[in-house]
Amino acid sequence: MDRLHAHIERNRDRYVETLRTLCRIPSVSFHNQGIPEAVRCLTSLLTALGADVALRRAEGASPLIVGTVPGASARTLLLYNHYDVVPAEPLDAWTSPPFGAEIVDGRLIARGASDNKGDLAARLCAVDAYRAVYGTLPLTLKFVIDGEEEMGSPHLREVVEANRELLRADAALGEGGARDDRGRPSMSLGCRGRILFEMERVGAGQTFHSSLTSVVPNPAWDIVWAFASMKGPDERITIEGFYDDALAPSEAELRLLDDLRFDEEGTRRRLGIPQLTLGVSGRDAIRRLLFEPTVEVSSVGAGRTLDGLKGMPRRAVGVVRFGLVPNQDPSKMEGVLRRHLDAHGFAAITLRPISERYPGKVPLEHPMVDVIARAARAFYHEDPVIYPVAPWIGAPYRELAQPLNVPLINVGIGSAESRFHAPDEGIEVDDYCAGIEFMARLFPALAAAT
Amino acid sequence: MDRLHAHIERNRDRYVETLRTLCRIPSVSFHNQGIPEAVRCLTSLLTALGADVALRRAEGASPLIVGTVPGASARTLLLYNHYDVVPAEPLDAWTSPPFGAEIVDGRLIARGASDNKGDLAARLCAVDAYRAVYGTLPLTLKFVIDGEEEMGSPHLREVVEANRELLRADAALGEGGARDDRGRPSMSLGCRGRILFEMERVGAGQTFHSSLTSVVPNPAWDIVWAFASMKGPDERITIEGFYDDALAPSEAELRLLDDLRFDEEGTRRRLGIPQLTLGVSGRDAIRRLLFEPTVEVSSVGAGRTLDGLKGMPRRAVGVVRFGLVPNQDPSKMEGVLRRHLDAHGFAAITLRPISERYPGKVPLEHPMVDVIARAARAFYHEDPVIYPVAPWIGAPYRELAQPLNVPLINVGIGSAESRFHAPDEGIEVDDYCAGIEFMARLFPALAAAT
Repeated sequence: MDRLHAHIERNRDRYVETLRTLCRIPSVSFHNQGIPEAVRCLTSLLTALGADVALRRAEGASPLIVGTVPGASARTLLLYNHYDVVPAEPLDAWTSPPFGAEIVDGRLIARGASDNKGDLAARLCAVDAYRAVYGTLPLTLKFVIDGEEEMGSPHLREVVEANRELLRADAALGEGGARDDRGRPSMSLGCRGRILFEMERVGAGQTFHSSLTSVVPNPAWDIVWAFASMKGPDERITIEGFYDDALAPSEAELRLLDDLRFDEEGTRRRLGIPQLTLGVSGRDAIRRLLFEPTVEVSSVGAGRTLDGLKGMPRRAVGVVRFGLVPNQDPSKMEGVLRRHLDAHGFAAITLRPISERYPGKVPLEHPMVDVIARAARAFYHEDPVIYPVAPWIGAPYRELAQPLNVPLINVGIGSAESRFHAPDEGIEVDDYCAGIEFMARLFPALAAAT
Repeated sequence: MDRLHAHIERNRDRYVETLRTLCRIPSVSFHNQGIPEAVRCLTSLLTALGADVALRRAEGASPLIVGTVPGASARTLLLYNHYDVVPAEPLDAWTSPPFGAEIVDGRLIARGASDNKGDLAARLCAVDAYRAVYGTLPLTLKFVIDGEEEMGSPHLREVVEANRELLRADAALGEGGARDDRGRPSMSLGCRGRILFEMERVGAGQTFHSSLTSVVPNPAWDIVWAFASMKGPDERITIEGFYDDALAPSEAELRLLDDLRFDEEGTRRRLGIPQLTLGVSGRDAIRRLLFEPTVEVSSVGAGRTLDGLKGMPRRAVGVVRFGLVPNQDPSKMEGVLRRHLDAHGFAAITLRPISERYPGKVPLEHPMVDVIARAARAFYHEDPVIYPVAPWIGAPYRELAQPLNVPLINVGIGSAESRFHAPDEGIEVDDYCAGIEFMARLFPALAAAT
């Protein structure tokens, strides 16, 4: 039996305990909860691996943890993960406590178990295992652990730009990615982006008697009509300029789609919906998932929900979410939306941009893609699935890869059943332990290539 | 000096105190607050006037107070008012406490001072004054005082039908009406109606990661599109059948509009709006106010406001308000809306009717109209303003006038500055005292006519 594999088997309980310890810290950035505990725990884990640990933070922000583990070569691999998680609510929808990290039928259930403490702990344990079995790492590792990823990493770019030397690397692995429903490993070369805008329309300066309904304008209509002017039931977005910069998939990327799996039936069943948007299926569903920019009603409120009970709405608010694909620039979208609203008679709607994330990607032809694919094939005995763009957002192309000028590819160890961001998020303990081993095997492969 | 007038002048403080006492009781039916105190207070006031008092209530409902004051004739005038008020919130928008009944610059400020305790107290004091000056009333009075008017009088029809003999009358005066901005008295011969529907669209059975946005339908769109399908910015309602039964104003009614005043500039200023709906003005504004049926977004909610913070909306709710004019039947509107939604692809939206009030009116040609108009002219030295339909809803045509087969005309003593349902609702003390005298003078006029 292989020494690395045997070592991980022998240390399985200890490695699982590392993950459980992390998962028991309720590091919910949205509630500014558990951050110092998570930082202390990770500092101690990194230090035990022989890492130099530096905390870097923007004023008032949660720290970015940077742990440098020296290796036999100056070639440097940056490992990006995050220690914060989304809120666990609704709590009553969990079958095990979200911060209990209980293992039920081989599945560790916790908020953050997959997103992203599972990936993070596996990488830490991979260093431990590699060093125990082979000694010095074959390349230098830089763990870069974000505390605000679930808030959209609002300070990451600023901190990265202020610490270019500390963070300098030759390649970077991001978080995320999961085995598909056939169990095949996956990697993603890019991610989508988003920007949200709060649209506000103020009407009368006070609530008014409903007897005036026929002569006093109701601001809720402008919000409703504004949304309706952006997209009709055919799902085609009617905002001029919205699609302009969106990169269409290349022929090579489209060919990859045939190999991707999206668990349509499982998604429909889990979400209790009769069909996907527009009834799409198969390759069309996957093409939409990866390459279709979207405009969505993220929230809308007027009347009872917003300003109390009496009379007609005095104020209406709608949050519109633009789902972006690589090359669409969030910073251009306010102008695009403003012009659309003005042209459609909604000049009185005010706009406030919130929560932008940039899309980004590494070209399919980058040599790192093949190195990781070969390592995955060798370990999992399966051709890995390559997402030219992942359906999710938030890989830090703009915040990290661009200022450091480093290729960023995302690999992860969750599964189609991970329930990211949902109640009963979890990770299979077997997946986690395999992830430790795969990552330890990736180190020498990347050391040779990067 | 006229004896009645002199009596009211001498007793002015006492009569004002009657109103203040009523206004200090926070009888907010929506919060089920202060109801027993209001009933006790009114029972005691009525008993002091020599009335037989009966309380009639539907199971679990606030009582309807019926106070019969015998008169020299069996001819009976029913006086309909209500002792409940709308909530006072937002409290910080009041310059005097809403249940303090403080008098500031000759204006009594209180929630309910105009709507409807001012009318009610003036009528009670009118009986006191008439009897003190002239002895026996010239006709029998039946005070009918509702405790749930601001909730839409949900039990009134049921209680009236169960008490036809107790409530039998030859004519009825309702609440409401106010001097216009020129100080002219007014009366209204009818009122508008309404029905609201909650539209609900449930999407996914759980919140889901925003990465699925492009393939999982978002129920908020159906609510947005459904609203947009009902009315566009031209304000023309596009629901088939909606206008079918709406009575257009007659020639005689349209002629009345020229005499009506609507304080456009004051309304715009008070509400802080640049123009009325569609920029209407003058007679067009008044025609809309009285005769234009409406469809409004009463409230809408999805996403952040409804089901928490994460992911895409799982459920969306819109409350649509149909503002109805005489002859439109609220009970037909659910079918009308259902057919519209089904025809426009919104079969998945469920409907729940809430809060219906029927429109209704007395014909302009009814002899009582002229009797009241002449009495008003004689007392106020002004031609009264006659609203063929009032802009507001809630005169109990369906609940009271129809089952008792009695003409119902609405007269009131508020003013254009009463601020019904708004912070700093109030009544001019001079208006209130004049209202007492006017009402006492109406008794003999109506005794001769009804």
